Amino acid sequence: MTDQVNSTRVDAAALDAFCRAIFVGCGADEATANAATDAMMHGSRHGIDSHGVRLLDHYVTALEGGRIKKQPVIRFAAQLGAVGTLDADAAHGALAAYEGMHHAMEFAGKFGIGAVAIRNSSHFGPAGAFATEAAKAGFIGLAFCNSDSFVRLHDGAMRFHGTNPISCAVPLAGERPWLLDMATSAIPYNRVQLYKSLGLSLPDGTASDSRGIDVADPALADMLAPLGAAFGFKGAGLAGLVEIFSAVLSGATLSFDIAPMPGPDFSTPRDLGAFVMAINPEAFISRTDFDDGMRRYVDTLRNSPAREGQKVLAPGDREWAEADLRAIKGIPIDPVTEQSFRTLSGRFGVGLPFA
Amino acid sequence: MTDQVNSTRVDAAALDAFCRAIFVGCGADEATANAATDAMMHGSRHGIDSHGVRLLDHYVTALEGGRIKKQPVIRFAAQLGAVGTLDADAAHGALAAYEGMHHAMEFAGKFGIGAVAIRNSSHFGPAGAFATEAAKAGFIGLAFCNSDSFVRLHDGAMRFHGTNPISCAVPLAGERPWLLDMATSAIPYNRVQLYKSLGLSLPDGTASDSRGIDVADPALADMLAPLGAAFGFKGAGLAGLVEIFSAVLSGATLSFDIAPMPGPDFSTPRDLGAFVMAINPEAFISRTDFDDGMRRYVDTLRNSPAREGQKVLAPGDREWAEADLRAIKGIPIDPVTEQSFRTLSGRFGVGLPFA
Repeated sequence: MTDQVNSTRVDAAALDAFCRAIFVGCGADEATANAATDAMMHGSRHGIDSHGVRLLDHYVTALEGGRIKKQPVIRFAAQLGAVGTLDADAAHGALAAYEGMHHAMEFAGKFGIGAVAIRNSSHFGPAGAFATEAAKAGFIGLAFCNSDSFVRLHDGAMRFHGTNPISCAVPLAGERPWLLDMATSAIPYNRVQLYKSLGLSLPDGTASDSRGIDVADPALADMLAPLGAAFGFKGAGLAGLVEIFSAVLSGATLSFDIAPMPGPDFSTPRDLGAFVMAINPEAFISRTDFDDGMRRYVDTLRNSPAREGQKVLAPGDREWAEADLRAIKGIPIDPVTEQSFRTLSGRFGVGLPFA
Repeated sequence: MTDQVNSTRVDAAALDAFCRAIFVGCGADEATANAATDAMMHGSRHGIDSHGVRLLDHYVTALEGGRIKKQPVIRFAAQLGAVGTLDADAAHGALAAYEGMHHAMEFAGKFGIGAVAIRNSSHFGPAGAFATEAAKAGFIGLAFCNSDSFVRLHDGAMRFHGTNPISCAVPLAGERPWLLDMATSAIPYNRVQLYKSLGLSLPDGTASDSRGIDVADPALADMLAPLGAAFGFKGAGLAGLVEIFSAVLSGATLSFDIAPMPGPDFSTPRDLGAFVMAINPEAFISRTDFDDGMRRYVDTLRNSPAREGQKVLAPGDREWAEADLRAIKGIPIDPVTEQSFRTLSGRFGVGLPFA
């Protein structure tokens, strides 16, 4: 929701078709085009614009450079019972994560739970897209990933972890899922850039200089703080959990060893890691009891007393409301992204999704 | 580490034997005596005194009152493949959690992963005890639980979640595990009590009055804040994840419906929920590659640049160092706990572990 100022509004279906056609135009296979588009559109539909269609131009550069393979062969490097490790063959991260989650859901159907670690992957976009994929089919979904490092440790003065997100989606009968999708850093890096462009001071305990000392001026920010401010050992610990599941268990490169996302090298695969899990509630409890429990939990939450002038929301409520708004008003495309679309349109002979 | 002032130091083995004998003396079966003692001793050995042997007197009251069953029959209410739900029959929470974790480890041996949800349980003590149980056997362990509510939602003005901890233990070859054990509240409630007794102001964004407004005076604190301060929606979301896994999936009572821990009713079981999971790294990657990955991760972390005058620690490092110290100096017993031990000693004819 950070890119709405001076933005063109575009119909979601037209935007979706444009992204797919550009991916196919640059030589990506259909599975890659579909997965990468679905993940970006999850971001763009729900107001997570940092992980929305603004990434199209970046992904095309990575596909053309060879960092991401246009026609990868994803296979299990290990598989036992309800789990396995996928070698993603430098696939688009969204393709690897959707495929991993589909395997996890199949395992969960048989064994009640399924988990897939993924290595040799790449940037997968919004973690919530993959957790939601599980929830749509009635499973609880979890998705983690690591990425190039931006976040210091508690009392640390080094970019150590990626923003290492945790996403969890839980089915809610009769409506869209309960959906948590959070970075384990205090704030996302694009928030620092936004504050800089708006000339605003950063909130306390969110970003540091190279010595690990908190800064208020976004221009001086060299790294992000872990979630928790004075209790940042908790955020750093959660980032570590995500790192271990995504990178150690899968055999992927650790965040502090990953080449930076913005380049300059767009030809070498970056070997990001991820971890996805699906849980079948019906292996634990009847579907009716599960649905009733979630209903009582979420209804009590939404109707609970709030601080004066505030309203309490369940994780995901803000995103679903934004999705409803964007379904009517269209999806905002910031000026930089709009310009990149014009260039891509010309290069690949694909009609623009806006006038 | 909050109860060391004016404390008697007691040898760990003597303390352990005293607790076991008191439990047996009050009629608890051997499994309950062992599990409850092991969990409390995990707390007392590692400096987590809020969840250490100070709980002995409370547990005896609950066992004698009937809130906790002295000879429970724990059984699977549901079981499929790698998962199941245990009905704990109002057992001591530590017995239920250890038994759940042992089942999860057995499932993980067969299927690569195992998860057990637990209902009709009771206070289980330090979550880290159960995660560590898995790590000792080479598994990654996870443990969650819910409890009576103390923590508001982001922008909320109601005690909604318990302190709903997340614990994760990961085996580290040649040393004790990487061990995260954190409440999803900003601080634990006993920290508020400590600040009150010391006459100190609370850190920002940690506790609120009944309207959800932050307070600095611990005497005015009516509820705790979720982890994250201005970004408390993340801490509240994590608490929700723990609540859903521990209580909705298991069919236990939701935190806001649980009777308060301090009583006055000590006869009615409280139906707390928990969730434990074990993962077999060797189902994902060779043990050597896993161990090498953890080694590189933890060594890089411990040697990473720190803020001036600080040192970066891995989760668990502080606890293991405290355990080493206490192995030599003994375990501190605060005056209130010491007095309760004298009373229990007299009632059950068990010799005191101190002079």
